[in-house]
Amino acid sequence: MHRWKLSVILCVLTVAGGATAADETAPLQGFSAEASRLERGWEEKFRALPDKAKMRKHMQRLSAHPHNVGTPFDKENAEWILAQFKAYGWDAHIETFDVLFPTPKVRVVELVAPTKFVAKLEEPTVAADPTSNQHAEQLPTYNAYSADGDVTAPLVYVNYGVPEDYAQLERLGISVKGAIVIARYGESWRGIKPKVAAEHGAVGCLIYSDPREDGYFEGETFPEGAWRPREGVQRGSVMDMPLYPGDPLTPGAGATKDAKRLPVKEAPTLTKIPVLPISYGDAQPLLTALKGPMAPEKWRGSLPFPYRLGPGPAQIHLKVESNWDLKTLYDVIAKIPGAAYPDEWIIRGNHHDAWVNGAEDPISALVDELEEARALGELLKQGWKPQRTVIYCAWDGEEPGLLGSTEWAEEHAEELRQHAVAYINTDSNGRGYLDVGGSHTLEKFINEVAKDIEDPEKHISVWKRSELKQIREASPEDRKELRTRPDLRIEALGSGSDYTVFVDHLGIASLSVGYEGEDGGGIYHSIYDDFYWYTHFSDTDFVYGRALAQTVGTAVMRLADAELLPFDFSDFADTIHRYDEQLKKLLKKKQEQVLERNQEIAEGVFTATSDPKQTYVPPPSEPVPPFLNFAPLDNAATALNASAERYQKALAKVEMNGGVALANPSVRAVNALLIESERKLTSPEGLPGRPWFKHEIYAPGRYTGYGVKTLPPIREAIEQKKWQQAEEGIVEVGKILEGEAALINSAAEELEKVVQ
Amino acid sequence: MHRWKLSVILCVLTVAGGATAADETAPLQGFSAEASRLERGWEEKFRALPDKAKMRKHMQRLSAHPHNVGTPFDKENAEWILAQFKAYGWDAHIETFDVLFPTPKVRVVELVAPTKFVAKLEEPTVAADPTSNQHAEQLPTYNAYSADGDVTAPLVYVNYGVPEDYAQLERLGISVKGAIVIARYGESWRGIKPKVAAEHGAVGCLIYSDPREDGYFEGETFPEGAWRPREGVQRGSVMDMPLYPGDPLTPGAGATKDAKRLPVKEAPTLTKIPVLPISYGDAQPLLTALKGPMAPEKWRGSLPFPYRLGPGPAQIHLKVESNWDLKTLYDVIAKIPGAAYPDEWIIRGNHHDAWVNGAEDPISALVDELEEARALGELLKQGWKPQRTVIYCAWDGEEPGLLGSTEWAEEHAEELRQHAVAYINTDSNGRGYLDVGGSHTLEKFINEVAKDIEDPEKHISVWKRSELKQIREASPEDRKELRTRPDLRIEALGSGSDYTVFVDHLGIASLSVGYEGEDGGGIYHSIYDDFYWYTHFSDTDFVYGRALAQTVGTAVMRLADAELLPFDFSDFADTIHRYDEQLKKLLKKKQEQVLERNQEIAEGVFTATSDPKQTYVPPPSEPVPPFLNFAPLDNAATALNASAERYQKALAKVEMNGGVALANPSVRAVNALLIESERKLTSPEGLPGRPWFKHEIYAPGRYTGYGVKTLPPIREAIEQKKWQQAEEGIVEVGKILEGEAALINSAAEELEKVVQ
Repeated sequence: MHRWKLSVILCVLTVAGGATAADETAPLQGFSAEASRLERGWEEKFRALPDKAKMRKHMQRLSAHPHNVGTPFDKENAEWILAQFKAYGWDAHIETFDVLFPTPKVRVVELVAPTKFVAKLEEPTVAADPTSNQHAEQLPTYNAYSADGDVTAPLVYVNYGVPEDYAQLERLGISVKGAIVIARYGESWRGIKPKVAAEHGAVGCLIYSDPREDGYFEGETFPEGAWRPREGVQRGSVMDMPLYPGDPLTPGAGATKDAKRLPVKEAPTLTKIPVLPISYGDAQPLLTALKGPMAPEKWRGSLPFPYRLGPGPAQIHLKVESNWDLKTLYDVIAKIPGAAYPDEWIIRGNHHDAWVNGAEDPISALVDELEEARALGELLKQGWKPQRTVIYCAWDGEEPGLLGSTEWAEEHAEELRQHAVAYINTDSNGRGYLDVGGSHTLEKFINEVAKDIEDPEKHISVWKRSELKQIREASPEDRKELRTRPDLRIEALGSGSDYTVFVDHLGIASLSVGYEGEDGGGIYHSIYDDFYWYTHFSDTDFVYGRALAQTVGTAVMRLADAELLPFDFSDFADTIHRYDEQLKKLLKKKQEQVLERNQEIAEGVFTATSDPKQTYVPPPSEPVPPFLNFAPLDNAATALNASAERYQKALAKVEMNGGVALANPSVRAVNALLIESERKLTSPEGLPGRPWFKHEIYAPGRYTGYGVKTLPPIREAIEQKKWQQAEEGIVEVGKILEGEAALINSAAEELEKVVQ
Repeated sequence: MHRWKLSVILCVLTVAGGATAADETAPLQGFSAEASRLERGWEEKFRALPDKAKMRKHMQRLSAHPHNVGTPFDKENAEWILAQFKAYGWDAHIETFDVLFPTPKVRVVELVAPTKFVAKLEEPTVAADPTSNQHAEQLPTYNAYSADGDVTAPLVYVNYGVPEDYAQLERLGISVKGAIVIARYGESWRGIKPKVAAEHGAVGCLIYSDPREDGYFEGETFPEGAWRPREGVQRGSVMDMPLYPGDPLTPGAGATKDAKRLPVKEAPTLTKIPVLPISYGDAQPLLTALKGPMAPEKWRGSLPFPYRLGPGPAQIHLKVESNWDLKTLYDVIAKIPGAAYPDEWIIRGNHHDAWVNGAEDPISALVDELEEARALGELLKQGWKPQRTVIYCAWDGEEPGLLGSTEWAEEHAEELRQHAVAYINTDSNGRGYLDVGGSHTLEKFINEVAKDIEDPEKHISVWKRSELKQIREASPEDRKELRTRPDLRIEALGSGSDYTVFVDHLGIASLSVGYEGEDGGGIYHSIYDDFYWYTHFSDTDFVYGRALAQTVGTAVMRLADAELLPFDFSDFADTIHRYDEQLKKLLKKKQEQVLERNQEIAEGVFTATSDPKQTYVPPPSEPVPPFLNFAPLDNAATALNASAERYQKALAKVEMNGGVALANPSVRAVNALLIESERKLTSPEGLPGRPWFKHEIYAPGRYTGYGVKTLPPIREAIEQKKWQQAEEGIVEVGKILEGEAALINSAAEELEKVVQ
C-alpha cells in the first residue's frame, strides 16, 4: 500500500559543518563499552554485504508476473521467498489463512446523458514495457471490498470527498443525495471517499486520478517519464480499515480454516455503495459533461476544462459485481533464535503481494529485506549470534487490507504480547531521504542508527542529509528547534501498512522505514508499477535499496544484541507534551472560529457578500465549543516527564560506570518493563466505537484513513464536536500516561539498583 | 488599460448590525449645516438621474466598431462624445496631439524545430457575437512599442518573467542569453516582461495567456461563458511606462504639432527586443516542444502537459515589424465653470479609445461618465451651480501608453499645478464591490461618499458591503482593525490608467474608482470585449454602471461645492506610519533571509539537498543588509501626526461653531493650502533615474509596472540592495513629509482663525 502514508522524520544538534557521523568511540545506547565495540564490528561487516545486483535480479524475478492474492504467482513467490530464507540459513515456514477477497466480475461506468460515453476501465499495453501486456493475468482496475450495485444517477464532483468538501457543497446548495459522486484521489485514504459519500446519501462513487496530483502536471508521463499516463488507474482497497483492518469476516481473530466467520452481508468494513476507480482519460468526458456552479478554486485540477460541480446533467450508470470468494494467504515467517533471550522477539516485515506486478510496491523493499536476511545468514556463519530472536516476515494480502500481517498477528496475539520487543516495517523504497515513522520510545534509537548509515549520493550520513533538508524547508521557528534538539523528530504512525496490527492492536513498539523524496512517479497500483518502470525511473541502480537494507539490518541487529534495550522516554515525553499543546490550540482555534463566524452571521456578512446570481446558503450559527479540563492530561504529561528524567539519570549513571551486564538480574527486569512500555499505552476497551484499535496515543483517523490522529480519544472527539467524549478522553489518556509514568519509574528504580 | 491594477479599499467602525447609511443629520465634511442640507438635496436629485437604458444604448453605439488610436471610428467617437457634452449644456472642445503609435506590419511566430508549427496570431469570428467578424477594422494581435526584429533562437519558459523568476532559473543552471523567452501574462504588468528578459540577454519575448489565470481554469470560455477562449489574445502596450508614460518622443511636454521630438531610435521607452502576445492555443505547441527540467511547481499553468523549462530543443522564429507613424489623438474636454471659484478645478476623466471594440475597457465606465455629465447638465437647468469649475475629459490613446491624458496634462501643466483640486479617474466597470485607490488625503472623503451610495443588489450602502466583504476575507488582525477604524483603507495608486500624470507627475490629489468582484472574464484587450460579451456576462443590466455614475458624480459635486475642501490628514498620517513600519519590516526580513541563507550555505544545506540527477547551482553567500537610519522618516511621521491632529482639532472647533462660511478669507486661505498639499509631496528632481515621476509617496514600481511602490525612493532602493540610496531616500522623503507637516500646520493656523 504505502503512499499518502507518513510524511517524515527529523531534527538536529551539531553545528554548521559539524560531524555528520556518530561518535564512534562512545558506546552504543544499551551496550557496555566492550559489547558496543563488538557490535560495531559485526554491524560494519553486515553493512558491507547487501548486494545491489541481487536486489535487481530478485526484483525482476518477483515482479515477473502479476501476483495479487489468490494468483498462482503469489503462491509461487511465497514459496520462492521461503526457499531463499532457508538457503540463507533461517528456520522458515509458510502460514496460511483463508480470507474474503472479492475480485471483479462486472464493472461498468457509462455516461448515459446528455451524451454517451463508455469508460474503458483498462490500462493499455506500452510497447517499451515488457510486462505491461500480461492482460490475462492482471487484476482488472477496481476497488476491493466495494459493495455490489447497479445505479444510474446524476453526477456531482466532490473534490477529494472528505467531510469538509461536503460542508462546502452545502454552502453552495448542492446535495449528493441520490447522486453518484466523483472524487479525485488524494488528501484522504481512498476508502474514506465512498464511506463519506454514503453517509451523505450518495448511491455510487467514482474515484479518479487527476493529473494535478498524479499525472502530467507533476512530470512527463509513462513511458517517456515516471508519471501516470492518461489511461493509468490506481487500484486499491476501500474497506473501512479505520474500523478494523484484516479479513472482514474474522475481526480480532486469525482467519484460520475453521475460524468463526461473519456472513459477508454482516461484515461491517465493506462499503455501503458501489465504487470504482478510473483514469483521467475516462474521467474527462464525465467531468466535462457537468454543468452547475464552478467548483471552488482549490477543487480544480489540471484537466483542460472548467471544473463544475453538477448535479448533472451528466447521468452516470455505474455497475459493480464481485466474486465474493475466500482466498488463501501465504505468509512467510523466518527465524533466527536468540542466543541469550530466545523469548524476546525482534520482528521485521514487508509484504510480498502486489496489485499487479508491483516492482515498487512492495518488491523494491522486499528485495532489501531478503538481502538483510542473506547478510544476517552470512554473519551467522561467521560466528555472530543475536542475543534475542529475530523474526523476518514476508506478508501476503497487504494490498486488500493488511490481511496477512493482521491475521497472523491476531492468531499469535498472546505470544506476541508476551515476547515482541519491537516491529520494523518496510513497504517500498525509492531515492532520496530517510523517512521514519514510529513509536517515540524508539525515536532516539533510530536517530542513532541513521547516523551510522552513509547516503549513497552525498557520502554524508543519511541522518545529516535529512537534517539539512529539514533545515532548508522549515519555518524559522522549526529551524531553531532543528538546530538545537539532539534528535530529528519521527512521525507518529497512522495506517496503510503492516505495522498497524502490531502497534495499534497489540501495543508493540514499531517503526516504519524507507527512502523517498527524489523519486516520485505515477504508477502506484497500476500495471506500470513494474521492473521496467522501476529500473528506469526510481532507484535505478539500487543504491538506496542497499541503504535501506543497511538501515533496517543495523536496527534489527542493535535491538537484538543490546544488553539494555535502547528505549528512551525523554523524546516520548517531549512528544506527548507537544500533542497536549496541539490539542489546546486546536480547541482554542475552534472556539475562535465559531465565535468569529457567529459574529459575522450577526453582522450580516454572509448575506451581504453572496452573489445574487449564484446560490449561496449562509452557515448557521452554532454553540461555541466549551472549555475542557486538560488538567488530567497536563498532570500525566508532567509525571511522564519526571519519570523520563529519572530513568535518564539512572541510565547516565550506569553508563558512567561502564555500562550494563546482560546477566545482571536488574537489567533483565528493566528490559521486561521496557518491552511492556508500549503495551501500557493500550486500553483493553479500545477507542470509542472501534474497539480493535487499542492504542491511546496513535491511531489512523476515522476520516483520514492513513493519516494519523495522535491522542485519538481526545483529538477525534474535539474534531467531531463531542465535548463529553473529549472530557472522558482526557481522563482516559491521562490514566494511561500515568500508568506509563509508573512503569518508567519502576524501570528507573530497577536501573538504579545496577550501580549502587 | 485597467486590470492587474489596484486591489481595493476598506475598513470600518459600526458594530454588528449597525447603521449602514451615513448619518444624514450630521453636516457633510467641509460644509456648514445649511450648505450641507442644500448639497444633500442636490445630490439626491443627481443620483436619481443616471439612466441604465441610455448607458446601454451609448455602449452599443461607442463599441459598434474597433476604435483604437488612428482609426476613423476613434475620431468619430470623439466627435460624438463632444456633441453629447454640448447637448448636455457643457462648454466642450476637442484638443489634438500627434503621437508615435506603431501598428503591426509583420508578425511571425513559428516553431522551426524539432517540429514545425506556425502560430495563427488571429482571433476567430464567433457566430453568436455580431461584432467579432469586423476583421478588416480590427488591430491585429500585437504589443505596441515592441522593437522591430527578426530572430531565431531556442525557447525558454520563464514563468511570469519577473526578476525573481530569473533568480530561480539561475539556481537551476538555466540562462536565457541568446534565447527567446516565453512568459505568461500576470503577476507584473506586461511591459516588465520584455524589459527584464532583455536585461538578462534574451533576444525575443513571447507573452501568452495561460488558462490558469485567463481561460478555462477560471470558468466556461466565450461564447458559452465569460472566459478567454483558446484563440483569444491579450493585446497591450509594452512601452517602459515606469520610466515615463505618454508619447515616447515628447517626454515631459505636450505632443503638439510643433513640439520638439526625439528621433524614434532614441526613444528610451521602446522595448529592446521584439515581443508578441499569443493565445494559449498558439502557445501550447511551443511549450510542449520544450524539454529540460520541469518548471518549479508554482510556475505550472493549466495546459494539459508537463511544463518544462528548456532551453529548447524548441527553436522559435520571431519576427516583428511595425509602421512607426505619428497618429492624432482626440481628447474631449468639457467644462462647467465654477460660480464662486472658477480657478479651482475638479477634473474627472475616462478614456474613449480601445484596443478593439472595448465595450468593457473603457466604454463601460465612459457611458457612466456621460450619464454623470447629462445629469449635471440637468441640475444646471434646475438651478444648481457648482462653486468650483468642473472639467470632464474623455481621453484618447490611453491603451498604448496613457497618451491622451499625459500629453494634455503635460501641455497644461502650469495651469493644472495652479488650479487643480483633485482628479477622479474611471477606466472600466463591472459588478460587485466598490474598488478605490487614491491619495490618502481623500480617504476619509471617499469613505463618506461611499456611505451615501446604495448597492443595487443588496440595498445597503456600497461602503457597508465593502466593509463586510473585507471582514469576511481578512486575517484576524485585520478584522480587528476593520471593526474599529472609522474608514476603510484605500489602496495607493500605481499606474495603468489616466490618473498617472495627475498624481505622479503633477502632484494632484487623485482617486480611481470602479466596481468589480462579481464579474470577471477573459476578454481583456481582445476582439471579444464587445457589446455582446458585456451584456451577457458583466453588469448586464447596468445597475453598477448607475452606481458608478452616482458614486463619481456625488464625489465631483461634493468637491465642487464644499466650503472647506474635504481633505483630511489623519488617515494620511496613519498611512505614512504604516509605510514606515512596512519598510522597517522589509529591511529586517531581508537581513534575516541573508543571515539564514549564509548560515545554510556554511552548513552545506544546498549541496547536501540537491538531487545529483538534476542541475542545481547553490546560491552564493552575500553581505548582510546594513541597518539604516530611519530616524528622519520617524521624525517626519511624528511631525505629520502632530500637524494632522492640530488640523483635526481646529476643524472640530469650526464644526461645533456651525461650520465655515465660504466667504471667510481664512477659509479661502485654508483651501489654497489644501490644494497645495499634494503638490508638496513631489520633488522637482523626481525619483532616482526617472525624473518624470515626481511623487515621493506613490509610484508604479520599476519592476512591477502597474503595482505601486509606496515611499518609492526608499522601498525600491531596499529592494534593489542600494543601501546608500536608501539612506538618502529616507532623508529625502523625511524632508518632503516635514514640509507637508509644515503646510498642514499653516492650514490649521488659518483654520484656528475662523473661530476665535
